[in-house]
Amino acid sequence: MSRIWKQRTAEAKALAEPMSSTIARLKTSLTESNSQGLLLGCSVLFAATTDQTELLLRTCFGRPIISAENNKDKQWFQLSLEEAIYLSSILKCMKLVRENNKSANDEELWRHLMLSNKSNFPVLFKAYSHLRMKNWLVKSGSQYGVDFVAYRHHPSLVHAEYAVIVLSDEGESSKNKRLNSWSDLHCTLRLCGGVVKTLLVLHVRRRKGNDGLCISRLDDYIVEERVVSRWNPKKRSNDGGEGIEKEEII
Amino acid sequence: MSRIWKQRTAEAKALAEPMSSTIARLKTSLTESNSQGLLLGCSVLFAATTDQTELLLRTCFGRPIISAENNKDKQWFQLSLEEAIYLSSILKCMKLVRENNKSANDEELWRHLMLSNKSNFPVLFKAYSHLRMKNWLVKSGSQYGVDFVAYRHHPSLVHAEYAVIVLSDEGESSKNKRLNSWSDLHCTLRLCGGVVKTLLVLHVRRRKGNDGLCISRLDDYIVEERVVSRWNPKKRSNDGGEGIEKEEII
Repeated sequence: MSRIWKQRTAEAKALAEPMSSTIARLKTSLTESNSQGLLLGCSVLFAATTDQTELLLRTCFGRPIISAENNKDKQWFQLSLEEAIYLSSILKCMKLVRENNKSANDEELWRHLMLSNKSNFPVLFKAYSHLRMKNWLVKSGSQYGVDFVAYRHHPSLVHAEYAVIVLSDEGESSKNKRLNSWSDLHCTLRLCGGVVKTLLVLHVRRRKGNDGLCISRLDDYIVEERVVSRWNPKKRSNDGGEGIEKEEII
Repeated sequence: MSRIWKQRTAEAKALAEPMSSTIARLKTSLTESNSQGLLLGCSVLFAATTDQTELLLRTCFGRPIISAENNKDKQWFQLSLEEAIYLSSILKCMKLVRENNKSANDEELWRHLMLSNKSNFPVLFKAYSHLRMKNWLVKSGSQYGVDFVAYRHHPSLVHAEYAVIVLSDEGESSKNKRLNSWSDLHCTLRLCGGVVKTLLVLHVRRRKGNDGLCISRLDDYIVEERVVSRWNPKKRSNDGGEGIEKEEII
């Protein structure tokens, strides 16, 4: 399925503002202001300046919280754990603190997550950061019954291109696994076709080491990307004719 | 979701020809002609007379096979195993024979199925016969990633009302179970909404005895019916407000 732009001018707009440069600006801005995110349960609160608000909105990190507080210079954002940890551990431009104002280091954070019923989090985070590092915008896919949806640029310009399901042989995520039965696969593909997304299956696999996935060992794991799509003999007369193909999305 | 008729006159047509009486006529016709179905792998072949052809088409049993054989009095039908065993073991109007022309009794048939990679068959058959006995027309649901779809009358008159998923704690069907993760449930519900079907989950449970489900012990098992639908407070202001309800479809 090809990229679907929302307006005629959208592609030109997107080319004029590559996502990588907007993310670089966000990173600089957050680093310079010594940003702190407050860890509250399974989300993170962050007070953004006017500039940062614009950059967070343009890069799809978190969602603004509407509050009674009337402070024009400060906008509260609620970040998901994937988003906050990506900003803190991968982009290294935000510090996460707990309610007692003590900073939470990566390992503490990880333990907190494992204990708080988010045992599947490491695998989801690996997949999330894998896509983000390739400058895809990643949002929750719960609306379509998948883990994430991936956009090539801002959702105001382009429709989500991929519906992403994350699989792994690690821990909890190996149980109750998606796409384990034909009827589940049929259901997912039919839905993806209906909402004009391509199904992207990310398989998080261990490359080396015997310990479980954690924040300091993200590189021990690789992500295998598989696009599942209907084979169209007219469109693909030159390839091997595989219904399931493996492709790199960059 | 209410029943959706395909034409304005469809409901009157359906009321004039209740499915139960058409099935009764099929049963009489097949019994009187000592019908024999030929078991070939995972389907059954049956040569129908002109009358039987019409009745089989109207009750959605099997599908006619187009062949070079030019015999106006005989039409070959391919029946699925569920359909053939329902006709032979529940309606008792068809005898199943194997290639060597020996008749296959129920237990032999069941063993054949268990050996031929259809280990989930007993549970699917229990669900299939449960719906058929209530005069629903049941067809494969693979198009929508579910086990069956159920029609209140012939598909030429009415759209399928229910998308049916069969669950069980028995044998193979307890593994790789559908609807075990939220994302699978979201996906299925979103698809059902899109194709205007209601999700019906049939849970096949053991009532008594310790042996596995087989054709002679169908009554030891009960089918729990659950409809999963979005709760609409406007439509259901008088009930308890449960998003998941249990209802009997007759």
